Amino acid sequence: MRSFRVTSRHGEYDVVVGRGAWRRLRTLVRSGDFPGHRPALQRGYSSIFVLTERGLWRRWGRLFQTEAGLKNCGVLYVPPGERSKSLAMVERTAARLLAARADRRSLLVAFGGGVVGDLGGFLASTYMRGIDLVQAPTTVVAQVDSAIGGKTGVNVGAMKNLVGTFYPPRLVLADPVVLSSLSPRAFRSGLYEIAKHAILAGGRLFAILETEMESLRPEKPKSLERILPAAAKVKVEVVKRDEREARLRFVLNLGHTFGHALEEATAYRRFTHGEAVGWGLLAVLRLANLLGALAKSEEARMAELVRRIGPLPSIADLNERRIVALLPQDKKTIGGRIHWVIPERVGKVRIVDDVPMELAAAAFREVQAGLNPARMGPRPPTRARA
Amino acid sequence: MRSFRVTSRHGEYDVVVGRGAWRRLRTLVRSGDFPGHRPALQRGYSSIFVLTERGLWRRWGRLFQTEAGLKNCGVLYVPPGERSKSLAMVERTAARLLAARADRRSLLVAFGGGVVGDLGGFLASTYMRGIDLVQAPTTVVAQVDSAIGGKTGVNVGAMKNLVGTFYPPRLVLADPVVLSSLSPRAFRSGLYEIAKHAILAGGRLFAILETEMESLRPEKPKSLERILPAAAKVKVEVVKRDEREARLRFVLNLGHTFGHALEEATAYRRFTHGEAVGWGLLAVLRLANLLGALAKSEEARMAELVRRIGPLPSIADLNERRIVALLPQDKKTIGGRIHWVIPERVGKVRIVDDVPMELAAAAFREVQAGLNPARMGPRPPTRARA
Repeated sequence: MRSFRVTSRHGEYDVVVGRGAWRRLRTLVRSGDFPGHRPALQRGYSSIFVLTERGLWRRWGRLFQTEAGLKNCGVLYVPPGERSKSLAMVERTAARLLAARADRRSLLVAFGGGVVGDLGGFLASTYMRGIDLVQAPTTVVAQVDSAIGGKTGVNVGAMKNLVGTFYPPRLVLADPVVLSSLSPRAFRSGLYEIAKHAILAGGRLFAILETEMESLRPEKPKSLERILPAAAKVKVEVVKRDEREARLRFVLNLGHTFGHALEEATAYRRFTHGEAVGWGLLAVLRLANLLGALAKSEEARMAELVRRIGPLPSIADLNERRIVALLPQDKKTIGGRIHWVIPERVGKVRIVDDVPMELAAAAFREVQAGLNPARMGPRPPTRARA
Repeated sequence: MRSFRVTSRHGEYDVVVGRGAWRRLRTLVRSGDFPGHRPALQRGYSSIFVLTERGLWRRWGRLFQTEAGLKNCGVLYVPPGERSKSLAMVERTAARLLAARADRRSLLVAFGGGVVGDLGGFLASTYMRGIDLVQAPTTVVAQVDSAIGGKTGVNVGAMKNLVGTFYPPRLVLADPVVLSSLSPRAFRSGLYEIAKHAILAGGRLFAILETEMESLRPEKPKSLERILPAAAKVKVEVVKRDEREARLRFVLNLGHTFGHALEEATAYRRFTHGEAVGWGLLAVLRLANLLGALAKSEEARMAELVRRIGPLPSIADLNERRIVALLPQDKKTIGGRIHWVIPERVGKVRIVDDVPMELAAAAFREVQAGLNPARMGPRPPTRARA
């Protein structure tokens, strides 16, 4: 088990990664310190609530409560899937918190994947103008990425995270035990984000992944023992240096510019987020080479890592012009420009904002044509769920 | 024209009060400084939007734009009234901002009363996780109170401001010229909040009010020249010392505990917020005396000031038990206790959390019975609009 301290201008918190992480909640609940209130109330929360999904809680709720030492917590369920990330759901869950008498000294635990984490974070950051929040991420990508860093958000229309806040949790508790109930596809989706971290950080994480990729399996939590903390640490390091996502934090968008366009072009149905990032990585690696920023050999090394994760849903039918047209919709656009995160070698990227659109189109076309192919998998018949 | 600097842990900003205040927006727009972005983009906002009400903008929009130096701003209208303070309206306005291509470097100006200020503040604090905000309050209470201090919020069901944020504006620009289009009742409603500030601060503000109360009129902006800055300064001083509303900021709730109960008991239809605070002040003054915290002579002096503001809608028919039952619904309740702000003399209050409910009931009953009467005005036939 590893613990990383995040120090940001909004507050300090620990990210705990590894088997047994949930136990750290006991310490927080026992030692809760609330400056500015009368001594009699200075210890302990007035109440604790868990925001989660029903199926997930049925499988893991008992273990979580036992290990976290929660006895009388209230449980709020939200339906699985991206549609729960809405202002309507914020309204519903806030009303339920109020009905259950949650007050300013209540604690909210977001127990789930990215949807629960983003929604729960937004809810905690705005309920009575902010109550304490603990993130207990239950997917690979949430454990190494989305639950760390204090970003919260809900979607408006087709625009993901259009409305959100920066709000640090009190703790992030990532226990890999929950990953064993992930589907293989959901598990792989998380690995694409880990690959992204490895490309950004290089070094040991990249090396371990190169050696162990095929042995990483959800049913073997042991196989993740070295990977998860190393991948989480990449996010922690970036966040520590800039919680409010200016220049530095921006590198985390590697692979996401193309990725978002792919998700939008397929109405968020074909790809999981991680799979879209997988394609996004392959496309931006191609683009980096076309820009002359990345040597072919380095591109091959990184693309190989991405490809080894497994099959990706096909992009063969997607219209290149539509993908390119969707690029500027990226939220990171400032003053109408796309800011690209361009890999220069393993462990090094730079931000470029004057990439010609034709070059972006060419990169996508070449990846699509298999000039930098990923092994094709079957196109899933229904909505992507991960 | 007076200018007060608010220094809070979230940032610094100026509160400008007086004729000509809007001109200060020119300076901000010209000198906008955006750390972390490329030099070419460091000057100026990418776009400017005004959130307002249609009637208000029709009357004052041209003058505001001329004085503030705005040429190509987008205008977003929201319907007048408390119902616009909703998450549904946040969604609608966020979608409209997106459609108009507002990005992270856009500026939102909230031009209106408390509803526009609270909604606009919440929208700015969450749109793309936060864009710059300028408050241009257009009612008395917004100019001396609600637009200052960085609190934003929307209602959920019957619960006011259940969801909100702390988010400092870049500027607060309070020009009394707009007050001349307020109805006499709306104007008086603001004076109750000024009376609250005077009771809290004592000193010069209380003295001026005692001398000039009857001469304060919306159609004579001159009459407010000394009052408005002095009243705004009370809020500024409290906010400076504690932006996140712990103990100190709590004093601003003076009169609001009873006030909220009165508003809820009448479904927010009979009283304007200020009028409810007016009754709330009279009731809490009575309560303070019953508690033995406030001398009768001091109570009379303060109650007299409140009464001189003008007629209040009747409370004669309200059930005392219902009012008391609604008290603990106050959001300020922590761990099930009501925290009362109890006046001890002009310029001094203390916070008390062990007030017996019977005493609160008695205080309300006595005010209701006219033992500390306000001159009764006619009960308005329709919804309160101020």
